[in-house]
Amino acid sequence: MRAWEKNIRRVEPYVPGEQPDSPKMIKLNTNENPYPPAPGVQAACRDFDAESLRLYPDPSCRELAHELAACYGLEDGQIFVGVGSDDVLAMAFLTFFNSDRPVLFPDITYSFYDVWADLFRIPFERPALDEEFRIRKEDYYRENGGIIFPNPNAPTSLFLPLKDVEDIVAHNQDSVVIIDEAYVDFAEESALPLLKKYENLLVVQTFSKSRSMAGMRIGFACGSPRLIQAMKDVKESYNSYTMNRTSLRLGVQAVRDKAYFRETVERIIRTREKAKERMASLGFIFPDSQANFLFVHHPEKDAGEIFSKLKEREIYVRHWDRPRISGWLRITIGTEDQMERLYEALEEILKEK
Amino acid sequence: MRAWEKNIRRVEPYVPGEQPDSPKMIKLNTNENPYPPAPGVQAACRDFDAESLRLYPDPSCRELAHELAACYGLEDGQIFVGVGSDDVLAMAFLTFFNSDRPVLFPDITYSFYDVWADLFRIPFERPALDEEFRIRKEDYYRENGGIIFPNPNAPTSLFLPLKDVEDIVAHNQDSVVIIDEAYVDFAEESALPLLKKYENLLVVQTFSKSRSMAGMRIGFACGSPRLIQAMKDVKESYNSYTMNRTSLRLGVQAVRDKAYFRETVERIIRTREKAKERMASLGFIFPDSQANFLFVHHPEKDAGEIFSKLKEREIYVRHWDRPRISGWLRITIGTEDQMERLYEALEEILKEK
Repeated sequence: MRAWEKNIRRVEPYVPGEQPDSPKMIKLNTNENPYPPAPGVQAACRDFDAESLRLYPDPSCRELAHELAACYGLEDGQIFVGVGSDDVLAMAFLTFFNSDRPVLFPDITYSFYDVWADLFRIPFERPALDEEFRIRKEDYYRENGGIIFPNPNAPTSLFLPLKDVEDIVAHNQDSVVIIDEAYVDFAEESALPLLKKYENLLVVQTFSKSRSMAGMRIGFACGSPRLIQAMKDVKESYNSYTMNRTSLRLGVQAVRDKAYFRETVERIIRTREKAKERMASLGFIFPDSQANFLFVHHPEKDAGEIFSKLKEREIYVRHWDRPRISGWLRITIGTEDQMERLYEALEEILKEK
Repeated sequence: MRAWEKNIRRVEPYVPGEQPDSPKMIKLNTNENPYPPAPGVQAACRDFDAESLRLYPDPSCRELAHELAACYGLEDGQIFVGVGSDDVLAMAFLTFFNSDRPVLFPDITYSFYDVWADLFRIPFERPALDEEFRIRKEDYYRENGGIIFPNPNAPTSLFLPLKDVEDIVAHNQDSVVIIDEAYVDFAEESALPLLKKYENLLVVQTFSKSRSMAGMRIGFACGSPRLIQAMKDVKESYNSYTMNRTSLRLGVQAVRDKAYFRETVERIIRTREKAKERMASLGFIFPDSQANFLFVHHPEKDAGEIFSKLKEREIYVRHWDRPRISGWLRITIGTEDQMERLYEALEEILKEK
């Protein structure tokens, strides 16, 4: 080994959901939206002035921030925009979690939280979800250097009622509390209205799920002007230009078309509710999802086996060989047709000896 | 001050070049290309399939990496793609500079190196450029945890001859040496051919200058498969999807049109060489630029005053109030017409008492 190789950072390679590319496949493994982005997005693409690409983009993302602020009844200075919610969340860790006390997040949750904490040398502790995968709010009533959890949680799909979210925020007014709402548009309500009361609350959302733009990498945080300005200062201190001109332009169009947004979200929720009936009748058990996926377990069939047999049929779902969840599968809600093919395949697989 | 405010990361806000937006202005302050991207980029935009945006992008950026590899006679596994060269360079700092010894870079150089070093808690030292702003290669022949410098350097515009670059790399085979070639397409030669001999060399380039795509945020690193794989592992361990689908698609088109690329680069070089004559005849002194900008000083007129008087005329250049360079201005090479208007304005300003 050469001397310089000793100084290469050691990491655990992340294994993202497979990105197979076959015309016949049914891809229910990365929680993408089965419907295309709003029609205005396609038009904005067609009419985009490529000459403008010679110039740097607006580092403060003013136009997109303004559109989002208007959409959610906030001020422009309450919005921070980033390259997907991963970028926004990592920036929030870097900006707010600079205490010697541990940051708290659940033992079963989004897999990047501990990675960012390690990256930025932030101590953390992971209170366990209860036996039914619920967050126990009392676990978060103790000294800490910050709190973060997704709502709905991933991959469990469970939503923590807003009054419990508020209890956690109210008990932690000395910490920044981040609610990662990647899936909230499929759930009963967002924590955004709490921003009026709590200056230490940050709500993070994404265009990747409900807005059908996973391929565009747009995420955003909403919070008090004090929190948002701090994130902007940190971001601009070391990388000014991250959002490119196409993201900014097409993102605006995605926010503007509110009717299309509601229609596709409602369609996915209807398909999900029907999926609950069908999966139950196939013998699966699952938490009562408020996300665009189900997290399912079958008492009589090994999850790894179901995963492999679905894959043989070019149906891709997600399985983790990890403590507490190795018996479970995460299945994204697709179109009605895709879901019908899933049920047929599962029926066959469950009949096999 | 609330308790959570104490844990907000303290940073020195970065002040990017102004982004004025007036139809009459002449913008020579951020080293953008005055010509639009290749015609194929506009066509790719028009024909882009916005439906595909519902899916995550290819995290390994295969198509764009392949196109770049083919363009530079490298293997696909020798290319790492990121969100502008800032993203690529920050990732290289994080991946390779993990020693207790100081990383070395010049005292006058790109302003983000020390920021990233601080961010990742990397020790560093900054050997001084000589009185004529030249890198003294012997300053880099000592124990270190890595080396990085731009070539041509910024904001000095000076190019270090390739044999000197090779001497630095050859003297430091126990370190990773990064050559930041943001402006190299306007200079005599790239260090890319050295990759055949040195496994510890990383060459970083960008689409923001010579390829007219500052607004798209595309940068890339070329190096041995060992270095590139290490960067990919680190990047994917904490943020898998950074390059969006439009960047990947339009980037490919920008690389393909080699004739257009050569033509615009040569045009800028011709304008630069003429600018040297004109600026000299106005009494300015400057290093012999091999970049798309000049770094100029006037013995009889204060740089800050010239800066302000150009700004009154809606001509924007760059001035830093920093040790050793406060008497200097950085002026981007614009179109022939823009440069003529610059010379006229300077003539007026220099005549004023």
